[in-house]
Amino acid sequence: MELQVAVAKVSKYAVRESGDTLEMIERPHGGLSFVLVDGQHTGHGAKQVSNLVAHKAIALLAEGVRDGAAARAAHDYLYTHYDGKVSAELHIVSIDLVSKTIVISRNSHCPAIVGDARGIRLLDQPSEAIGVHRRMKPVIAELPLEQDASVVVFTDGVLDAGVRYGQSFDVVALVETLLADPTVGAQTLADVILARAVELDRGRAGDDTSVLIVRVVPRTDADPARRLAVRFPID
Amino acid sequence: MELQVAVAKVSKYAVRESGDTLEMIERPHGGLSFVLVDGQHTGHGAKQVSNLVAHKAIALLAEGVRDGAAARAAHDYLYTHYDGKVSAELHIVSIDLVSKTIVISRNSHCPAIVGDARGIRLLDQPSEAIGVHRRMKPVIAELPLEQDASVVVFTDGVLDAGVRYGQSFDVVALVETLLADPTVGAQTLADVILARAVELDRGRAGDDTSVLIVRVVPRTDADPARRLAVRFPID
Repeated sequence: MELQVAVAKVSKYAVRESGDTLEMIERPHGGLSFVLVDGQHTGHGAKQVSNLVAHKAIALLAEGVRDGAAARAAHDYLYTHYDGKVSAELHIVSIDLVSKTIVISRNSHCPAIVGDARGIRLLDQPSEAIGVHRRMKPVIAELPLEQDASVVVFTDGVLDAGVRYGQSFDVVALVETLLADPTVGAQTLADVILARAVELDRGRAGDDTSVLIVRVVPRTDADPARRLAVRFPID
Repeated sequence: MELQVAVAKVSKYAVRESGDTLEMIERPHGGLSFVLVDGQHTGHGAKQVSNLVAHKAIALLAEGVRDGAAARAAHDYLYTHYDGKVSAELHIVSIDLVSKTIVISRNSHCPAIVGDARGIRLLDQPSEAIGVHRRMKPVIAELPLEQDASVVVFTDGVLDAGVRYGQSFDVVALVETLLADPTVGAQTLADVILARAVELDRGRAGDDTSVLIVRVVPRTDADPARRLAVRFPID
């Protein structure tokens, strides 16, 4: 098998800094974790919040702390740092090679979409943002790390795309269509979802908009290399 | 302009875990940092060392600590943790959007290659591994973040490729040839260098082998999206 992960993100139109932060880290016992944080509001303030939360979660995951505990700690840290006045939405998606599962931890009103060879389903249990309530817990789902497993996680720039223009983005339907092709790559999924969100916002993203895809596909060849590619526009 | 970063890595042939660790982090004031660590020996022990060092450096960079200070701190930490008995080679490559430079910090006997529109040059000032001497400092180079700027960093699996078979890998010549095409992408550079190293080792990498490329290319279109793609084979 081969794991593919792809992220595509844009900031709100005409805002230089995205309030969404995405970080990845190698898990000390094997595997990778991805942390996607949407800080309250937009611009520099939101970026500072999302950076703070993402870096706290990443630092803990790097030390082997479990995802649920890392999410709780990131909450406590944000709550303490801003006195309960600033919120953030937090997603952690981990590929855990020890338990051979993909773990999805949500503190967000955005659902996640998971799929496998049998179809897709929505992870939309009620879940609260971190930082503003004294107590909080993440909503955690786990799926087997097996062929065709797919996870789609996004911030509210995707969820609310087109709303200003009286339209709505049926992400589930789009993902279902895309996954009908079993060879579809993670990068394609991310790019198509982001492009559709921006299109619904008439080319001007109404909010920071990020999408994270994790997908397990067949090994195409015997190539044992791990690869990472980043594209980062500079003004 | 557009920043492209690519990493390709394989572990030593028939060894499950690579002793090389690559991590990235977003810099709090803007930009990205990449940390590549080669832990002493191979296998699980080396992985633990390189994870420890990489995660310490990443945590500090995430807090806004400057690269040189992060390298020194990672050294002190490793030196303290293993009582001066375990070494690691450490590279930090940062794209700093504040100073508008690429900063290359080396604690490695492997040279780095940097290039621009005028040609390429080797960064091969003597530089020591971290962890084993009481005092150490990184060798730091800085180049302008401008069109055609290129950085090639690698671990000793690349440097010593083919040595067992009486051959040597002229990485500089290969990079020079590849960069003669100004449109060559970071991913191609990384893939070709890794493939050549493994080829010189007759298909069985003699050591953990990693290559990191940073390249500044013209913006191909108005697309403002940041993208990340990961490929990770699973046994």
